[in-house]
Amino acid sequence: MTGLKFAIVGCGAIGGFYGVKLVQAGCDVHFLFHSDYETALSDGLKVDSVDGDIYLPHVCAYHNSSDMPKCDVVIVCLKTIKNNTMPQLIAPIVSQNTTILLIQNGLGMEHELAVHFPDNTIYGAMAFICSNKIGPAHISHLDYGALTVGCYQHGNDTILNFADSLKSVNVDVDIVPDLNTARWRKLVWNIPFNGLSVVLNKTTDHIVGNVSTYELARCIMIEVIGAARSCGAEIPDSFADKMLDATKKMKPYKPSMMLDFLNRREMEIGYMYDNPVEEARAHGYEMKYTHMVECLLRSIQAGYLNR
Amino acid sequence: MTGLKFAIVGCGAIGGFYGVKLVQAGCDVHFLFHSDYETALSDGLKVDSVDGDIYLPHVCAYHNSSDMPKCDVVIVCLKTIKNNTMPQLIAPIVSQNTTILLIQNGLGMEHELAVHFPDNTIYGAMAFICSNKIGPAHISHLDYGALTVGCYQHGNDTILNFADSLKSVNVDVDIVPDLNTARWRKLVWNIPFNGLSVVLNKTTDHIVGNVSTYELARCIMIEVIGAARSCGAEIPDSFADKMLDATKKMKPYKPSMMLDFLNRREMEIGYMYDNPVEEARAHGYEMKYTHMVECLLRSIQAGYLNR
Repeated sequence: MTGLKFAIVGCGAIGGFYGVKLVQAGCDVHFLFHSDYETALSDGLKVDSVDGDIYLPHVCAYHNSSDMPKCDVVIVCLKTIKNNTMPQLIAPIVSQNTTILLIQNGLGMEHELAVHFPDNTIYGAMAFICSNKIGPAHISHLDYGALTVGCYQHGNDTILNFADSLKSVNVDVDIVPDLNTARWRKLVWNIPFNGLSVVLNKTTDHIVGNVSTYELARCIMIEVIGAARSCGAEIPDSFADKMLDATKKMKPYKPSMMLDFLNRREMEIGYMYDNPVEEARAHGYEMKYTHMVECLLRSIQAGYLNR
Repeated sequence: MTGLKFAIVGCGAIGGFYGVKLVQAGCDVHFLFHSDYETALSDGLKVDSVDGDIYLPHVCAYHNSSDMPKCDVVIVCLKTIKNNTMPQLIAPIVSQNTTILLIQNGLGMEHELAVHFPDNTIYGAMAFICSNKIGPAHISHLDYGALTVGCYQHGNDTILNFADSLKSVNVDVDIVPDLNTARWRKLVWNIPFNGLSVVLNKTTDHIVGNVSTYELARCIMIEVIGAARSCGAEIPDSFADKMLDATKKMKPYKPSMMLDFLNRREMEIGYMYDNPVEEARAHGYEMKYTHMVECLLRSIQAGYLNR
């Protein structure tokens, strides 16, 4: 519909969902698969969605990025634990006019990427979505789906075409003026609830349902807000209570890091914990609660990853 | 030997050990038992000790403090979770000349006790000992045994008699000039290792053996030292590394709080965590690491105590 060529790099719960939605919107989408490549090639891509199931029997599936065409928009939905190899992975599909969009959680991803692609347009996005991969090339979309997008460098209008395409299939896309603030706002929830769900091995309802962990979650949120402020992202303290109230109303939920933990996968500690702690420290703010969560997570992960 | 009448209130791993040692030194010791009263009355008190086993077939055992004589020295070895009822418990055996000695971990116990006994001599002590209760009126003494004793109010020479009695049976007693500093020094180890052993369900060797938890333990220690300083207890930062080195050399060890946790007993959170956090806060110092340990411990305890 837009005439643009899209690449989805990392076709899990997030990339699979937005890629399928772009196809549904009539876009030309090229999917880079890892372990699910054979299944995607033979069986296509399935999204069981609260908004109506989608089944694409044929998708433009690739196993190597070097086999893919250069794309106008490269959408990276890899877990951040793979970001050390990501620039090399996307290099074959990035031309000088390519817009790169990172749909990832954490802080500092765009900054690292820009070192490799200093002249490219780079956007960052956060997905507010409940979706899981339930099998090879098979995604379950449970709730929500909105994207918040902000420009990191060299903003252009391509992102508007992307947003319009998704909006045409009922996916909300909010383009915000300040990526830094948007990333920190997401961390206000992610830092306490991802970490505590693993440390305590409890879903979100237990964390907000116990007075001690509710208090702790709030203290962590206030710390993240303070850190954000030190890094130039203005978030009011009342945002913590708004998030806590929203979490109280949510159904019992396993944050993505808890799913990684329960499945003995590597957790996204670096971008979600180390980077905010270091960024805040560079601005003279010590995130002690967050640092402690980070240390506990690393210790827990060492217990099952043997690294 | 001293002519003094001693009471041991709380005859577990600590009280049983020091009480038996006092008997061995020839002192007149009156033991207040709780659940082990019947066993102590019929079978006596046993200490299996690295320094030589001791068996007292007959001890002055009581089940109610109102049946006991007034004592010259009342040695309280109860867990601090019972401190809310302790003043009433010892009232029958305390006269105006009684010296009260609290062998307990944490902060603020003497201050609370002094409200009830403003005119009595009060000492505080910390036991550096590895001992466990392995059965009713049966204690296993594995290692160490030294006491550090400091005066809280109205110091007198009775404590010297007490110390001499224990020294005569090879128990080191160090009478220090500053109880406040001694209590904070003990907290430098207790706060990280008791708490983290429960939060991580790991013995001390694992905590110092993993880079992340070693770093965390050190951060907590430095925080406790900073808090101590704000409360007038001068401890050098190098004390943290000294304690960490000592812990590395220790055999795998389950701190007392971990034993409570593993046996699903109430943990000594109030005096070991809440009180230091509040005391430091009153002096303008925020113990964020310690506060987080406290919150995690309360949440973990709520999971098995249903309170």
